[in-house]
Amino acid sequence: MKAAVAGASGYAGGELLRLLQAHPAIEIGALTAGSSAGGTLGEHQPHLPALAGRVLLDTTPEVLAGHDIVFLALPHGHSAAVAARLAELGEDPLIVDCGADFRLEDPAAWAGFYGGEHAGTWPYGLPELPGQREVLRGTRRIAVPGCYPTAATLAMFPAFAAGLAEPDVVVVAASGTSGAGRSPKPHLLGSEVMGSVGTYGVGGVHRHIPEMEQNLAKVAGAPVRVSFTPLLAPMSRGILATCTAPATPGLTAAALREAYAAALKDEPFLRLLPEGTWPATAMTLGANTAALQVTLDERAGRVVAVIAIDNLTKGTAGGAIQSANLALGLAEELGLPHNGVAP
Amino acid sequence: MKAAVAGASGYAGGELLRLLQAHPAIEIGALTAGSSAGGTLGEHQPHLPALAGRVLLDTTPEVLAGHDIVFLALPHGHSAAVAARLAELGEDPLIVDCGADFRLEDPAAWAGFYGGEHAGTWPYGLPELPGQREVLRGTRRIAVPGCYPTAATLAMFPAFAAGLAEPDVVVVAASGTSGAGRSPKPHLLGSEVMGSVGTYGVGGVHRHIPEMEQNLAKVAGAPVRVSFTPLLAPMSRGILATCTAPATPGLTAAALREAYAAALKDEPFLRLLPEGTWPATAMTLGANTAALQVTLDERAGRVVAVIAIDNLTKGTAGGAIQSANLALGLAEELGLPHNGVAP
Amino acid sequence: MKAAVAGASGYAGGELLRLLQAHPAIEIGALTAGSSAGGTLGEHQPHLPALAGRVLLDTTPEVLAGHDIVFLALPHGHSAAVAARLAELGEDPLIVDCGADFRLEDPAAWAGFYGGEHAGTWPYGLPELPGQREVLRGTRRIAVPGCYPTAATLAMFPAFAAGLAEPDVVVVAASGTSGAGRSPKPHLLGSEVMGSVGTYGVGGVHRHIPEMEQNLAKVAGAPVRVSFTPLLAPMSRGILATCTAPATPGLTAAALREAYAAALKDEPFLRLLPEGTWPATAMTLGANTAALQVTLDERAGRVVAVIAIDNLTKGTAGGAIQSANLALGLAEELGLPHNGVAP
Amino acid sequence: MKAAVAGASGYAGGELLRLLQAHPAIEIGALTAGSSAGGTLGEHQPHLPALAGRVLLDTTPEVLAGHDIVFLALPHGHSAAVAARLAELGEDPLIVDCGADFRLEDPAAWAGFYGGEHAGTWPYGLPELPGQREVLRGTRRIAVPGCYPTAATLAMFPAFAAGLAEPDVVVVAASGTSGAGRSPKPHLLGSEVMGSVGTYGVGGVHRHIPEMEQNLAKVAGAPVRVSFTPLLAPMSRGILATCTAPATPGLTAAALREAYAAALKDEPFLRLLPEGTWPATAMTLGANTAALQVTLDERAGRVVAVIAIDNLTKGTAGGAIQSANLALGLAEELGLPHNGVAP
Repeated sequence: MKAAVAGASGYAGGELLRLLQAHPAIEIGALTAGSSAGGTLGEHQPHLPALAGRVLLDTTPEVLAGHDIVFLALPHGHSAAVAARLAELGEDPLIVDCGADFRLEDPAAWAGFYGGEHAGTWPYGLPELPGQREVLRGTRRIAVPGCYPTAATLAMFPAFAAGLAEPDVVVVAASGTSGAGRSPKPHLLGSEVMGSVGTYGVGGVHRHIPEMEQNLAKVAGAPVRVSFTPLLAPMSRGILATCTAPATPGLTAAALREAYAAALKDEPFLRLLPEGTWPATAMTLGANTAALQVTLDERAGRVVAVIAIDNLTKGTAGGAIQSANLALGLAEELGLPHNGVAP
Repeated sequence: MKAAVAGASGYAGGELLRLLQAHPAIEIGALTAGSSAGGTLGEHQPHLPALAGRVLLDTTPEVLAGHDIVFLALPHGHSAAVAARLAELGEDPLIVDCGADFRLEDPAAWAGFYGGEHAGTWPYGLPELPGQREVLRGTRRIAVPGCYPTAATLAMFPAFAAGLAEPDVVVVAASGTSGAGRSPKPHLLGSEVMGSVGTYGVGGVHRHIPEMEQNLAKVAGAPVRVSFTPLLAPMSRGILATCTAPATPGLTAAALREAYAAALKDEPFLRLLPEGTWPATAMTLGANTAALQVTLDERAGRVVAVIAIDNLTKGTAGGAIQSANLALGLAEELGLPHNGVAP
Repeated sequence: MKAAVAGASGYAGGELLRLLQAHPAIEIGALTAGSSAGGTLGEHQPHLPALAGRVLLDTTPEVLAGHDIVFLALPHGHSAAVAARLAELGEDPLIVDCGADFRLEDPAAWAGFYGGEHAGTWPYGLPELPGQREVLRGTRRIAVPGCYPTAATLAMFPAFAAGLAEPDVVVVAASGTSGAGRSPKPHLLGSEVMGSVGTYGVGGVHRHIPEMEQNLAKVAGAPVRVSFTPLLAPMSRGILATCTAPATPGLTAAALREAYAAALKDEPFLRLLPEGTWPATAMTLGANTAALQVTLDERAGRVVAVIAIDNLTKGTAGGAIQSANLALGLAEELGLPHNGVAP
Repeated sequence: MKAAVAGASGYAGGELLRLLQAHPAIEIGALTAGSSAGGTLGEHQPHLPALAGRVLLDTTPEVLAGHDIVFLALPHGHSAAVAARLAELGEDPLIVDCGADFRLEDPAAWAGFYGGEHAGTWPYGLPELPGQREVLRGTRRIAVPGCYPTAATLAMFPAFAAGLAEPDVVVVAASGTSGAGRSPKPHLLGSEVMGSVGTYGVGGVHRHIPEMEQNLAKVAGAPVRVSFTPLLAPMSRGILATCTAPATPGLTAAALREAYAAALKDEPFLRLLPEGTWPATAMTLGANTAALQVTLDERAGRVVAVIAIDNLTKGTAGGAIQSANLALGLAEELGLPHNGVAP
């Protein structure tokens, strides 16, 4: 099977290519870019030597045609048009959208957080969400989750699936700077971010909030409210999310751990750490895995779950390929690394 | 006035010396250490050239005698004995304890979180806590607050003083590694912490929790519950604390901001950032200041306050000197930097 | 005395302001900027709270008029015009140019490395260069050295002054990213620089080469050839330069050390570390000092000198103020920090 | 084939295991450790989930017996005894020593730099060294090169093989902290290394010098002198080495580039970057590749070659497996990653 990657010069595109090169069932086809079109991939992704000479093409439907899979790693707002034009050309590849366009089900949430017209909803590419594997098997469209919602959902779904937490979640998540993309902005300069932790988008305004609420509400079977604060940490990759909600009355530490152990035991990429061990992003660097730990804070009456993922791997490109594997009828783990690169 | 510094080879001791050298009313006297005694300060604090040749003495009452001020930057559990032996020698210097021994008022809290016998309670060195300046003026004993409690208390006291938040606080705070001290442990190696954010002491077990609760309860006039999660971030200095609590019914964004503006307007070291600007630890690196921002998350119904401090300056050594200034009848800001070192 | 700072929104400008605020004989006057004019300083230098409300003015001669000192932290090529227009207005302030325009004496070197017309030569602001203090006392113009030339010259001048090294120097210097300025470029993004050391401008093309050669040739009394390789290191501040040249025949380790000790013993900001201790940039962070060490590699027959400075302090803004102090008849050390901020 | 890894709890051991898990022809057998024996691998290498439950055994010949390959990642001085005791047991596995014991050919060099008795010399595991592949094919013993010598040798061998440089080399190489190992020492604490570049072992004393000289002398057919300065950079992984030597008379830039292009063109893991592109360690993070660039500094009359490798991959564990592949008659590239993990 042949895959095109649109947006190959960005961070998500680069990670897709790194992983696809190691994928035994997928061959890399056309690479496209926006303003970088015309140059070679080597100018933008010098860590991928075998593809260094590949020329970046324009992101047109004609270039993307003729592939079995099209990965879109584009700025928000472009995916719907690309998909429509591919359909006009009579093409029906598996389209995997790493952008936000098709993640939300509620047009009002889209309007409130993104503005403009809602493009629609595609099957949500988080296989670990209860029932979601069935949705993804054989689909021709995938909306890849946001990196923060991937982390927060995976950290809290076992609690909500088992009815162990009240629907009033606080998420504080530290992310590496690659989550903010490759377009050069003053506050993302190395001089600014090294040696400093900062925050942004505080107070109910971050676009990943409705996505977290949508996921957890499905699991809980009732609305869930999320207060979310993102931190920018001095590292290139990784998300460490602390997620906490009031424990339901009578919850015991043993019951909480049991629920998490049960929910995660057959998940190939989710890993409940041994008791007493807490996640760090280095455990998952470059891997498609998530490292989790959960505890009951009996003094404060809260469930506290902490999760580490690599925002570019499990949080974007790896998650995209995991869902694509399901869509294509391949083994879910095919071509995806379990080991982190540490130290 | 002459000050001795016990524990001069550690990070808190080094920061005390850096600040004291710039203090116009304090002269640096004896420097003492534990296992490093006998060596020179230059071996441990090569960033302080003028003191490089100073020999580190043993931490004995005789060595600490004859000073107007004694700063103790010792491991927990040693301060009471040092103070007692100084008294036996007929000495009554201002003793400023950077350790935890005398911070807590409740012996049960001490027993639960630290174990062993409670040494007692000294005036708490956080001048910004309402009413605390009066307590500190002229005192001969100061218990310097912990770094995390400094951050969390300063972030939330305006909300509790004005009755704008429910007493159920979630604090997630990222700290630089210097907060963990200088004793070499595998998880503090550069190879482990660079490129990674991790967590530890999750779920109601961190020793700084009762201190946060004690402070906020005083301001609120009622018990306050704190859920606290510390993060270890890949930087040497700085704490960025996100603090959130349910808003009291009817709270408006304007009323919240007004309360913070009013509480902070005469504080020499606390700074409410302009609306839309969020704290980063780089703003306060090496400074005795705190940078704050607050917002009302109307969707989630929560007050969210974020604060940045330097854990070694405002969070330890700077805060210690600020309180000492009050105790000694000096201007509170004397010798303390307001500017951060950035980028 | 009142000082204007042109280029106040950049990194050099910010460091000038941080230091000037602590300077007892200089008051801060007008702040100017290029594209940031009209905004406040707080938007760009949030670590300087007392100046946060200051409005950035346009960089015009009228705005810069009426000051005793004008610090220029502008992109190369603008200083000559500013100086000329100030003279037309009848102004004769001390002008301290942090840019490259007036550093080189040889118009051919200027043409070869910078291109365009050579603006001229101003007294070179490196007081430690033998004989240079006399040149700087009372001058009305100062060309502040480049950061790398400051490091390389201070590391090697004692060897050349004493005739202990052959004039064939290799300099490899790692710099923090602030040396590359604040204008956002893709290769300076935090995501790119964290976790990575890279190089650039290799092979005799870096603009700081003729400046190093000019300085060392003066000391040696004969031409000196410099091979220079700059490294970009994952830190915001600091330069660590390794400088090596063949030892002259018969040189002994003791004679080499003696020469350095003698050359540095009265220098207020240069510090020869104890034998066996090697420089690290953290020793000088935020300080106007340089930490040096030198050794004789007897196997390879080479002098090896290593120096650490803060590129923004001793390497730019601190060095500028040090020379300005001399020009203004003030004590050379006035207002300049000797202590680094560590860890 | 089954491989044992002795020293599995350290950084080299962890990297061996990460790579061996992806190796299609090698199965992981016994894991051994020193003071960590008795614990599980997961306590030390939490980034390797599939091996987390493996118990670390004592490093005894009995435990290492019964394997086709034994990787030794031990402190220096232990390998000879382990090999001898395996022979006494009648075992003759391929032994791959990641330590220094068998790298040097000259007992006097061993005595001078390491002290004690010279254990002997094993085939040197750097396949790219001219003629070395033939030596490694079918061997039962491999001495894995040091990380710095790997970098310096690969950067300079094309110049010496073609007679383009004088035998007087200056190497300045910045390394990530993992090169210093996992044993906790104060100067390796995150608080010390973050935000700082330092140096150590300057002036002809670093143990990797005789190894560099041995390699380059073989290629040059005559003695080569190396001045080496190692830098400690604030990153976990990676070496960026700048290597320079006087150019032989008449050398042109074109001839230099041609020689490098010719020497590297069939090398599967060495990559000469396009002209104008310079190496950064991020290009090779986690990969077994080296990124090189070379130029002629005509002003200074020097060849300047710069190379980036991952010290743990190509510099240790990846290089070890590459040589083992040759020894075992497998394809040289088998199981070894070419892509870096970036950003």
